[in-house]
Amino acid sequence: MSEIDRLIHLLAKLPGLGPRSARRAALHMLKRRETVMQPLARALAEAAAAVAPCAVCGNLDVHDPCAICSDPHRDAALLCVVEDVADLWALERSGGFRGRYHVLGGLLSPIDGIGPEEIGADRLVARAAAPEVTEVILALGFTVGGQTTAHYLVERLSGCAVRISGIAHGVPLGGELHYLDDATLTTALAARRALG
Amino acid sequence: MSEIDRLIHLLAKLPGLGPRSARRAALHMLKRRETVMQPLARALAEAAAAVAPCAVCGNLDVHDPCAICSDPHRDAALLCVVEDVADLWALERSGGFRGRYHVLGGLLSPIDGIGPEEIGADRLVARAAAPEVTEVILALGFTVGGQTTAHYLVERLSGCAVRISGIAHGVPLGGELHYLDDATLTTALAARRALG
Repeated sequence: MSEIDRLIHLLAKLPGLGPRSARRAALHMLKRRETVMQPLARALAEAAAAVAPCAVCGNLDVHDPCAICSDPHRDAALLCVVEDVADLWALERSGGFRGRYHVLGGLLSPIDGIGPEEIGADRLVARAAAPEVTEVILALGFTVGGQTTAHYLVERLSGCAVRISGIAHGVPLGGELHYLDDATLTTALAARRALG
Repeated sequence: MSEIDRLIHLLAKLPGLGPRSARRAALHMLKRRETVMQPLARALAEAAAAVAPCAVCGNLDVHDPCAICSDPHRDAALLCVVEDVADLWALERSGGFRGRYHVLGGLLSPIDGIGPEEIGADRLVARAAAPEVTEVILALGFTVGGQTTAHYLVERLSGCAVRISGIAHGVPLGGELHYLDDATLTTALAARRALG
């Protein structure tokens, strides 16, 4: 396999890329070897060498503990539980949370052999038992797996002296009612808040 | 900018990727540093170092002249003119052509300052004047730029003792007539062939 074919083969395995877009990206880079291709090769090698999971929360960072866990300005009383680092990134971009995180790395799924051990439930309970933690926020997806995992974690955390909360479900910002599915509308109605 | 942010920033500039898919690809790789990320970093660095444009035809390859130009089994009598290396790759995948190529690297576009010199028209005329060349096939897109460039090249090549041809335009394979645009249908009708 030639250098070009091998490159296309590896690019095509990335999420969101297929053979066609991998060829397009490879050609784009081959035409810009010094300005695009070599910087990307270096960035990949450097990130691969420097980035590792945070031993405390599971975030990916060049520091361990990660920048969030070691930031004294982040509120250690609030522990936000997410499925994946992608969710942590999304919450960080929103800028709406100033506490700390706990990345499960997956959701309970007996069919796939993912049980409490695989999502590190014991580690979460141990962190939640720390005296500085007052609230655990379950920020899991509004999916079967997300809600099953949330129910399980509520049970596991019931022995800890912490408040347990879940993020709100309802109509998303910009969501027009007539485009939304029945389950979301039913939930949004049931979770209605007093306004007056 | 952190290693992760720099990587996402560079990935997001590739064609077909935006900020969201770049984050997804970066996270996919960061979770598979040894199996996906490092091999891709190496493949990029190796291709960037080894691949260069062929001085004869403009194809991208690790050899110069490229594998096609130096293959004695390819018919040197046929010269296929394409806009871009992507078109050359597409024709090679089709397996329908056993001659050699000439990559223009662009199409005439006075508004963008792309004239005969930018597309290397003189180099093409010089190649077409070689005694072994008997036919020049213009395989340019059925677009304003492609057809303008084809007309210009027909004029420039008129002094060479070669047959000049253009790829056929018409209904594509699998093309249903009622989905096709007027211009394609008009062309396909005008270029009809006798069957009986």
